Amino acid sequence: MTAAPLPGFEDVIDAARLLRGHAVVTPLLNAAPLDEELGCRLFVKAECLQRMGAFKFRGAYNAIARLAPAERRRGIVAYSSGNHAQGVAAAARLLDAPAAIVMPKDAPAIKIARTEACGAEVILYDRHGESREAIGARLQDERGLVLVPPFDHFHVIAGQGTVGNEIADQCAERGAMPDAVLVPCGGGGLAAGIGLALRAKCPETALHTVEPEAYDDTRRSLAAGERLAVAGTPATLCDALMSPMPGALTFALNRIAVARGLAVSEAAVKRAMRVAFEQFKLVLEPGGAVALAAVLEGAIPVRGKTVVAVCSGGNVDPALFATILAGG
Amino acid sequence: MTAAPLPGFEDVIDAARLLRGHAVVTPLLNAAPLDEELGCRLFVKAECLQRMGAFKFRGAYNAIARLAPAERRRGIVAYSSGNHAQGVAAAARLLDAPAAIVMPKDAPAIKIARTEACGAEVILYDRHGESREAIGARLQDERGLVLVPPFDHFHVIAGQGTVGNEIADQCAERGAMPDAVLVPCGGGGLAAGIGLALRAKCPETALHTVEPEAYDDTRRSLAAGERLAVAGTPATLCDALMSPMPGALTFALNRIAVARGLAVSEAAVKRAMRVAFEQFKLVLEPGGAVALAAVLEGAIPVRGKTVVAVCSGGNVDPALFATILAGG
Repeated sequence: MTAAPLPGFEDVIDAARLLRGHAVVTPLLNAAPLDEELGCRLFVKAECLQRMGAFKFRGAYNAIARLAPAERRRGIVAYSSGNHAQGVAAAARLLDAPAAIVMPKDAPAIKIARTEACGAEVILYDRHGESREAIGARLQDERGLVLVPPFDHFHVIAGQGTVGNEIADQCAERGAMPDAVLVPCGGGGLAAGIGLALRAKCPETALHTVEPEAYDDTRRSLAAGERLAVAGTPATLCDALMSPMPGALTFALNRIAVARGLAVSEAAVKRAMRVAFEQFKLVLEPGGAVALAAVLEGAIPVRGKTVVAVCSGGNVDPALFATILAGG
Repeated sequence: MTAAPLPGFEDVIDAARLLRGHAVVTPLLNAAPLDEELGCRLFVKAECLQRMGAFKFRGAYNAIARLAPAERRRGIVAYSSGNHAQGVAAAARLLDAPAAIVMPKDAPAIKIARTEACGAEVILYDRHGESREAIGARLQDERGLVLVPPFDHFHVIAGQGTVGNEIADQCAERGAMPDAVLVPCGGGGLAAGIGLALRAKCPETALHTVEPEAYDDTRRSLAAGERLAVAGTPATLCDALMSPMPGALTFALNRIAVARGLAVSEAAVKRAMRVAFEQFKLVLEPGGAVALAAVLEGAIPVRGKTVVAVCSGGNVDPALFATILAGG
């Protein structure tokens, strides 16, 4: 068995070229009062401002744009708890490809509604009883659709890597060199892509994945040197980060590029969402707030350093957000 | 009596040069599902992402940076319900000028706290019994401080105008020419500055001020052709837009540049805050949401048009935001 090819930095640059004018170059934001409190220079990369409210559009667009015209006409299928679904749906519409999206029944209502608003066909499944992979495979067979996987895919990883490319450029514009970049981690596609850009442009920068404690498969896998899975489907607020195991490609990249995997508590996630509200005026979903949470909790030493926390998404139901704002 | 000089577009360009690297070039954001619903191309200019959470930093920095070194050393004074206070405090700190800020006792706690966090001295007054102008004048006399007024000032207006300059450039990058730009309006400084940029770069674009219904002094003044005041201090959620009368300079500019003044209900403001949360992942304060509210309420026809709504600030207490998100 030959190993699947891994993307490199040149593939990230190709993706950046393709995404120009389609993806938002999201701002790198700073809050002086928070910097003062933490004694560091903290930037947040506001990917919640990306098209459809999460970084996922980047990888989806990069993958779908590279399909052959006939494949694009037949259409694509994707499975996702929500953010990849929305990113794929929006990219498919821009590229005139029909999209069928397999989503768990218990995904946030806002994510299901926004996926449908992009013209995609949504197929709901039971997260605890059915396999989204099996449903996706059936649609591939029956309709000849091409699968756009959520993370373990050459062009998806390269597309997410454009976040890292922008971080490097935006830090350079400010005369800053990040000591550390912290990245929310589900299957590891965003971290893997960002790692490609950092190793090329900021080789001294420490890359950290951040997961919710209940889904710390990447942290444990990195420590063990092999891919380990989460047992069962524990509860977490971070619906975007509930993938059970690192991907083969993403793990191959992350084991080289990631300094250390981190994990944060649910309480830390809620606090980070409140801080993002107050200091950055950003709406973050729980999974989008884990990297900021790790900085605020002191998961790595930040005093005197320049640190970037990627805030990867903002698709959260208003009722949950209101509860968390109120301290719940 | 000779009239005070009015800034022109060249003063906006000067301000943009001075602000480079200090103010955030805030993104112009778009949400495909909302565009579909409204049948238009809507961009929001996310000034809530500006340093200290509102556009005010721009004008404050431009004004303070132009003081003589001796004036800057003595320090500056400002009065404000909150956003100008924070903008002045942050700009003064960057420019090494001591700052005394006169704020109403009932300003949102978050605005008072953040002003103090920037190292400014906060002096609270009673909005219903005392005159902030008198307190400001006393501090000027006693301490030799220079007043940085919230809107009716040559360099403050020119600084706010950089928002309009960015809107013109960011629309051009997208191959778009705005049919209309809607701007939240208190004393009128932001609209006056934006008007300078639009007349130079997009002369066909219709500029609209937007006020809360209870503080529609600019709308009525524009219609009457003379400056009219609000009677008393009616209640509104939009604490940032409670100025009682257009400024002399701002009105002189706005009566030339503004196509028509608009006003929106409190219910429309709350709805716009919810839409900004869901579609743009932005935290808007009530006063920062009035322009978006006007678009959503159909205050001008938008179908088939390209429209920009300036979202001018995001400094809102979490409890109020949570209540509004929950439909309150």
